Amino acid sequence: MYRKASYGSELDQLIQLLSKLPGLGPRSARRAALQLIKRKDSIMRPLSTALAEVAEYVNPCSICGNLDTSDPCHICDSDRRDRTIICVIEDVADLWALERAGAYRGLYHVIGGTLSALDGVGPDDLNIATLLERVPGGDIREVIIATNATVDGQTTAHYITDRLKEYDAIVTRLAHGVPVGGELDYLDDGTLTAALKSRRPF
Amino acid sequence: MYRKASYGSELDQLIQLLSKLPGLGPRSARRAALQLIKRKDSIMRPLSTALAEVAEYVNPCSICGNLDTSDPCHICDSDRRDRTIICVIEDVADLWALERAGAYRGLYHVIGGTLSALDGVGPDDLNIATLLERVPGGDIREVIIATNATVDGQTTAHYITDRLKEYDAIVTRLAHGVPVGGELDYLDDGTLTAALKSRRPF
Repeated sequence: MYRKASYGSELDQLIQLLSKLPGLGPRSARRAALQLIKRKDSIMRPLSTALAEVAEYVNPCSICGNLDTSDPCHICDSDRRDRTIICVIEDVADLWALERAGAYRGLYHVIGGTLSALDGVGPDDLNIATLLERVPGGDIREVIIATNATVDGQTTAHYITDRLKEYDAIVTRLAHGVPVGGELDYLDDGTLTAALKSRRPF
Repeated sequence: MYRKASYGSELDQLIQLLSKLPGLGPRSARRAALQLIKRKDSIMRPLSTALAEVAEYVNPCSICGNLDTSDPCHICDSDRRDRTIICVIEDVADLWALERAGAYRGLYHVIGGTLSALDGVGPDDLNIATLLERVPGGDIREVIIATNATVDGQTTAHYITDRLKEYDAIVTRLAHGVPVGGELDYLDDGTLTAALKSRRPF
């Protein structure tokens, strides 16, 4: 891709590592490296420190799988959250999305992916066992399954729903429908059908 | 864009810094941060080290402006390069591109941008004075102006050509024409006109 002789080995190493970030290829990694060198004090050194600090101090919460410097995480530890609801999501990014929306005040459980026959991901590869330990006891009255609306996400949702059947908690899932601000003309048939089926009185 | 409360402050800081890299927005910075945390030992810690090392040891060459851990850089210092030709480029990325092509064995001079009336970039903001110091003396027999084929790049090329008139070195520029592997149908009129004008016997 590029000749090692062109840069020094330090720069070469930096560019190779940057190009492994999602969204950066070899060309944008080179561009990023040059930009970083131009802004050593404002970005490059702080970024180096931030990476080292996060690597050192940020770890998955042993209860819910959220990433935080404390364990249990600040959500599991908070007394301002509704401790009777657990929202099951695939990834920490989904937790962040829900927190940004600000509409949910319960607890979370990050399962860390989806079941996938193709990729050989089974229930034991996900944090499902820990979820099944949290639900019994009667404290949890609702489990919201908020896996993605993909085939794998829905398969996983069905699997979890099935495993939770024996407990008292009710299991719900996010509504399908027209995205707020969305135009019907650009929506797929599946979403339109779901939105029609779940129509509500004005 | 995102609520600070959702992440810890270390993670928040990391995501903000990552989102300043060219090619990464807030969403891809979050994705990159999660990916980094999943691969702490293979990417995150090495990246932190690489950033710190490059920030510490890589600096512009005082002769040509190339980035290197040594000053003069390995190109200026090499006795295997043709020391009678200087290729003038806008940016270190252009130097890397020429080195990757492997067709040039002379020296370089990175001017660090282009003249731009709109952005208020004048000759004193670029490394042009240092170029004018390198050319006199008779050692340099050719200066290749390889600024980009943009309006600003060509303005800069004309300015430099003008300033070099008084010296003995001949001033050349890269040929315009059809890119190798390029299809005529996708080329702009300017390139086609230039390619026709500079046509050569088969």
